[in-house]
Amino acid sequence: MPTLTLYELSGRADRRFSPFCWRTRLALAHKGLRSQNMPVKYTDKSSIAFSGQERVPVLVDDGVVVSDSWAIACHLEDKYSERPTLFGGSHGRSFTRFIDLWATRSVFPNLVRLVLTDALKHLDPGDAAYIRQSRSAQLGVELDSLEGQRHLNIGSFRESLTPFRSHLRHRAYLGGNEPAYADYSVFGLFQWARMVSPYRLIEADDPVYTWRSNMLGLFDGLAANVPSYDI
Amino acid sequence: MPTLTLYELSGRADRRFSPFCWRTRLALAHKGLRSQNMPVKYTDKSSIAFSGQERVPVLVDDGVVVSDSWAIACHLEDKYSERPTLFGGSHGRSFTRFIDLWATRSVFPNLVRLVLTDALKHLDPGDAAYIRQSRSAQLGVELDSLEGQRHLNIGSFRESLTPFRSHLRHRAYLGGNEPAYADYSVFGLFQWARMVSPYRLIEADDPVYTWRSNMLGLFDGLAANVPSYDI
Repeated sequence: MPTLTLYELSGRADRRFSPFCWRTRLALAHKGLRSQNMPVKYTDKSSIAFSGQERVPVLVDDGVVVSDSWAIACHLEDKYSERPTLFGGSHGRSFTRFIDLWATRSVFPNLVRLVLTDALKHLDPGDAAYIRQSRSAQLGVELDSLEGQRHLNIGSFRESLTPFRSHLRHRAYLGGNEPAYADYSVFGLFQWARMVSPYRLIEADDPVYTWRSNMLGLFDGLAANVPSYDI
Repeated sequence: MPTLTLYELSGRADRRFSPFCWRTRLALAHKGLRSQNMPVKYTDKSSIAFSGQERVPVLVDDGVVVSDSWAIACHLEDKYSERPTLFGGSHGRSFTRFIDLWATRSVFPNLVRLVLTDALKHLDPGDAAYIRQSRSAQLGVELDSLEGQRHLNIGSFRESLTPFRSHLRHRAYLGGNEPAYADYSVFGLFQWARMVSPYRLIEADDPVYTWRSNMLGLFDGLAANVPSYDI
């Protein structure tokens, strides 16, 4: 087995909720690989200075440094090509990248508005202050106003899931009958939410709810067996 | 060669602009297949009564009747599996279906608001009256008010393309280096728009514009060589 080290975001009480790091965690499990997981704080990135950039996840695979969740997925698919595929071929890799971008650019911004204020409670005070300032500027809103706007923002979030919901009426996963990296890419967002917020994002009769339940059961409950809210 | 007949929507002066029929036209070209194309009017579906439903496209392939653009794509991929692939395998088929639904459910509704009033001008009077009534009810707006709201709605349309635009910064097509059915699925919407409306949907510096230009050049200009607006 290769020696793999994953540097991932760590919140208060070492809660590891980064949606992008969860993409990598599940990709590693899909490939049957184990990693040593090292904590990184928002305001102390010294432990990943060697990667030449400041964002997690960072994967070190037998001395090879790869940062960015998409680049890591491509690395794992290429290096461990004899293991279960994450993408399903070259077309699948390109389509998966689209779905990955859809999750990050069309779904995530709506989700952030719903659970970011809860997420702050799961950060160490210094990290929380940093995030409060930087995200408030990014979003152009006072973060404290977001909680009161949930009843407005939940509609946009659920609507952004429309094509995904339609897809799940006929297939269990984005990958078809089995999960693929596209599923991990979307699931990372939901895993972040359930690890930081008790807010109910989806109703039990939503196909997305069933899909999320199935995702939680994968790899002996890898994503289920962490501190989270029962939503 | 098989005997293929495609029943497709026909507007005023026999303009064939249906986004869903264009998906099929390009899928046929991708497979190197030729079809005889038969016109169908919104208000006279008698010519496709044999299909047991009332929507186009309908494909008749050596006596086998297939309706619905997605079902047709799957039929072509399965029956003509030795010809260039539309999906790139079983994972690719599932991912493509997601992208197809994204185009139809997340992009198309925004596009309809921008060009539907122009589209009415390219329908025969009876069809236009039918569409005016049914779409007004569907959208919950007076169609005549849509043209004046374009400056508001164009933002939502362009924003819905965000993940696609991001994707195109690194790849020429959704299929990667070559177009695939996912590209035809999205392109059908743009082809509809350029055949019915002079309204400028995307700026020339948008990667989506470049992609659309490339799509227009495919198959000896199949989509370019029809009556359309120069936008």
